[in-house]
Amino acid sequence: MTTDLPESFDVLCVGNAIVDVISHADDALLAEHGMVKGTMALVEADRALAIYGAMGPGIESSGGSAANTAAGIASFGGHVAFIGKVAGDQLGQVFTHDIRSAGVHFDAPDPGDSDESTARCMVLVTPDAQRTMNTFLGISSYLSPRDVPEALAQRAAVTYCEGYLWDQPVAKEAIRKAMDTAKAAGHRVAFTLSDPFCVDRHRAEFLELAEHSVDILFANESEICSLYETDHWDTAVAKVAGHCEIACLTRSELGSMIVTGDGQRITVPAHPVDAVVDTTGAGDLYAAGFLYGFTNDFGLETAGRLGALAAGEVIGHLGARPEVSLADLAKSL
Amino acid sequence: MTTDLPESFDVLCVGNAIVDVISHADDALLAEHGMVKGTMALVEADRALAIYGAMGPGIESSGGSAANTAAGIASFGGHVAFIGKVAGDQLGQVFTHDIRSAGVHFDAPDPGDSDESTARCMVLVTPDAQRTMNTFLGISSYLSPRDVPEALAQRAAVTYCEGYLWDQPVAKEAIRKAMDTAKAAGHRVAFTLSDPFCVDRHRAEFLELAEHSVDILFANESEICSLYETDHWDTAVAKVAGHCEIACLTRSELGSMIVTGDGQRITVPAHPVDAVVDTTGAGDLYAAGFLYGFTNDFGLETAGRLGALAAGEVIGHLGARPEVSLADLAKSL
Repeated sequence: MTTDLPESFDVLCVGNAIVDVISHADDALLAEHGMVKGTMALVEADRALAIYGAMGPGIESSGGSAANTAAGIASFGGHVAFIGKVAGDQLGQVFTHDIRSAGVHFDAPDPGDSDESTARCMVLVTPDAQRTMNTFLGISSYLSPRDVPEALAQRAAVTYCEGYLWDQPVAKEAIRKAMDTAKAAGHRVAFTLSDPFCVDRHRAEFLELAEHSVDILFANESEICSLYETDHWDTAVAKVAGHCEIACLTRSELGSMIVTGDGQRITVPAHPVDAVVDTTGAGDLYAAGFLYGFTNDFGLETAGRLGALAAGEVIGHLGARPEVSLADLAKSL
Repeated sequence: MTTDLPESFDVLCVGNAIVDVISHADDALLAEHGMVKGTMALVEADRALAIYGAMGPGIESSGGSAANTAAGIASFGGHVAFIGKVAGDQLGQVFTHDIRSAGVHFDAPDPGDSDESTARCMVLVTPDAQRTMNTFLGISSYLSPRDVPEALAQRAAVTYCEGYLWDQPVAKEAIRKAMDTAKAAGHRVAFTLSDPFCVDRHRAEFLELAEHSVDILFANESEICSLYETDHWDTAVAKVAGHCEIACLTRSELGSMIVTGDGQRITVPAHPVDAVVDTTGAGDLYAAGFLYGFTNDFGLETAGRLGALAAGEVIGHLGARPEVSLADLAKSL
């Protein structure tokens, strides 16, 4: 599946290609299955089946952290491409349809003769609107360097990768290739820490990335505190300022702070929301707004406000992709 | 896949087993593809692919008219079973999971060696909240009499079938078997006319059904007017009263009228709704509330009010299955 390659992109997003299965759940179900609320756990086929069997009726909606970010950037009107791996099954068709029709450039890599299925993530939304995720990666974890066309990273002002991919050795190499290609072409590299447990698993490498490879780092409070093994927000802020050109640190309803290597601290309030329904995708869409604003030279503060706007839209409904045009939403402000 | 069969059911629902693919669309897209707003069209694989390609990003949610009714009855706390045919593919697994976890008894019939896929319906929701549906039936249209276990129809106080199934000769035989079995066991038969175009295609047979087989008929205004080839509501009401023991006639925001063979005309107001988001499933959920109330001996008027309540819930969000417990909703009134 190849389409004509545009001359340039604002952003190339690299991440897991996942279809979310979203269901309301109560705290008892989480406890019964030993889940930690608000985090993402990788599950094998057996556990995936057990959890699915225990879940209520769901809706399926395309997801994947960096893929959500790509859909958000496209919704703002940005030029964006996505790299991730789906199988030739129905969920793979769903993922491919959804991201392309959102306006994202996506050439599904050849699944080869793998009998792995497309990744799915069981998202349990509790009455407090928190999401707890159980991901069965399937074919997504086999993303390899040969699935990363150099032409894409060479043409994108920013190449953005998700930390979640770091759990798979071959996918890690794929990220490295994307980052190295972007760097060699003189472009920027962005990265999200994804999840506090993910940071726990890869702290040394993530620190090395932050210091040497990443120009724009995205993290929420628990992730950045986990990275620097501190309980103190101020300590984490001070440390990251010495490591990255730009760090975008989100704090849920407290808004976000954009920290730069040259000493700026820009505080951006959260966008007011009538009712928080499902926090899935909040960080992904914050990154979308920021990266759209950043690559279109709107300045850091406006970029942060666009991030807050996009996050505010996505937490107002079930599912991690915008339901309305973010470009229209931005105009209406 | 067999589970222990309960001793009795309030309702057995027989219909197409469909996963809906729901997307927002504008009127231009409908016009471009020659769709008639508010109706259901059957599409072949090629046209299904073309429409899907033209649609925006979607969400997948289990659907199927009688299946939605079954999920609604279960949500009220009723004992309900469903018969419909899915393939062994991912969408078939989604459908099976969703209806079972909603509390509906469902033994998926053996798909045999068919290479047909699970049915999907592309639901385009326009800004006026109307839904326009394009259904690719796949394996669902192969529902046959041998997929209808007599034990189910013998144990259900009401056997409810959807008119949509009438489009397929073998499925028609399956309905006939379910209806005949129910009648022979001294139980009631209910039927929905489903869609005005569906009525057009099968008017003679539907009239014969209404007169001789159906005890409880469900129809909206355009369907009942189509059945009797009249433009006048009063004419249609007078005619159906002579044909069925009970007819439940819905009129969107004008509410519904329950018409009985012994001369009753019970008017039930529509349930007030904050904002109508997506009318998909309104008729299905009205039938759910009515059949739950009817089989639990709440009387016709209360049954109609439960129908209005369930319809009001489902049009307040995307998707044709209830998002909250209808039992709780009914209690809170």
